[in-house]
Amino acid sequence: MFPTKKVQSLVGSKIQVEMKGSPRYVLEGILNSVDEYLNLHLLETVELIGGEKTRSLGSVILRGNNIILISPVVE
Amino acid sequence: MFPTKKVQSLVGSKIQVEMKGSPRYVLEGILNSVDEYLNLHLLETVELIGGEKTRSLGSVILRGNNIILISPVVE
Amino acid sequence: MFPTKKVQSLVGSKIQVEMKGSPRYVLEGILNSVDEYLNLHLLETVELIGGEKTRSLGSVILRGNNIILISPVVE
Amino acid sequence: MFPTKKVQSLVGSKIQVEMKGSPRYVLEGILNSVDEYLNLHLLETVELIGGEKTRSLGSVILRGNNIILISPVVE
Amino acid sequence: MFPTKKVQSLVGSKIQVEMKGSPRYVLEGILNSVDEYLNLHLLETVELIGGEKTRSLGSVILRGNNIILISPVVE
Amino acid sequence: MFPTKKVQSLVGSKIQVEMKGSPRYVLEGILNSVDEYLNLHLLETVELIGGEKTRSLGSVILRGNNIILISPVVE
Repeated sequence: MFPTKKVQSLVGSKIQVEMKGSPRYVLEGILNSVDEYLNLHLLETVELIGGEKTRSLGSVILRGNNIILISPVVE
Repeated sequence: MFPTKKVQSLVGSKIQVEMKGSPRYVLEGILNSVDEYLNLHLLETVELIGGEKTRSLGSVILRGNNIILISPVVE
Repeated sequence: MFPTKKVQSLVGSKIQVEMKGSPRYVLEGILNSVDEYLNLHLLETVELIGGEKTRSLGSVILRGNNIILISPVVE
Repeated sequence: MFPTKKVQSLVGSKIQVEMKGSPRYVLEGILNSVDEYLNLHLLETVELIGGEKTRSLGSVILRGNNIILISPVVE
Repeated sequence: MFPTKKVQSLVGSKIQVEMKGSPRYVLEGILNSVDEYLNLHLLETVELIGGEKTRSLGSVILRGNNIILISPVVE
Repeated sequence: MFPTKKVQSLVGSKIQVEMKGSPRYVLEGILNSVDEYLNLHLLETVELIGGEKTRSLGSVILRGNNIILISPVVE
């Protein structure tokens, strides 16, 4: 399965997204939609710094080119 | 709704935009227009550092590829 | 007005451009031309660090993808 | 062999991927798929910092434009 | 004159190019060629750090997307 | 000669490539192939930090957009 198809298969489930920036910046939320550039729309998003939930962000759009890594959250 | 469509649906309302850079750099303003690259035109823009309003910038254009995250401001 | 159209409407007037990089790096000049990538050609450009004019650069070309923010200078 | 073809030839084998970011950030896993942008889908991924395995990440998608370097792991 | 045309008009003359990176990194050389992405081929290139020539690099190719600013050198 | 053509003319010879990142990160190897994005496939690659060879990496693929500078190695 191609990388973008793999991400599309995760719509409706919880994912973690690591964004560019220093210090390391991780968002966790329900993947609502994704396009060919890996722009993401997440729901019920929380920010994680050092593994701790630091903020609730709700609905957010993430710019694909600033994403380092996407991984499914196994619950 | 695709990520860019979600952003288009926010035209006319207040959004927060987190930009690339260190330290973390957040802008808040009324979304006036957006294109397919997520370039944004904001009005009544203020700069936020550490949650505090640090500057009034008025009308600004933001380059899409340097946007980390866009979120609606619930008032 | 779309973001790039908004920038085109500023040709001939003074703008401030914030570039990527650390520390924060701002250029101010007369916008001579702009293309679809937001590459800019500025005239009479000065560099601002911490709000102070630190260098006169004259005619400069800025690469669009490294622009964070463009704003008109109200005089 | 063109660079992207070279990466395609590594599907099914173990690779190391160095990502943008500070400090240096290396992932090692089985390459499951790759597209023309060098977006990668890795399986059995582990994170390496300073040569030490610091986290098991399992299935991850990496955004191509944030990849610095890809190299095959010789075992 | 559009930004890329302006750069093309500088072929054969000496330019300064400021690249992404920290600390600030400037190259000075004779512009031999440029393409639509602002990839540049410079000859007789020298590296400048803090205004001092620190290295002679000769013939170099610069990747357009990592260029911050291009300016002609007036001699 | 256009910048990408210049790089293609270096296939088969030794080059130095400076990558994005902090601290400065240089790779030296035999250029095996290059594409229109300046993605590179290098052979017999060694990593240089501060001018010292710090690691042998063998066959590596470099993502074009993270390349700062390419220069031929004169031997």
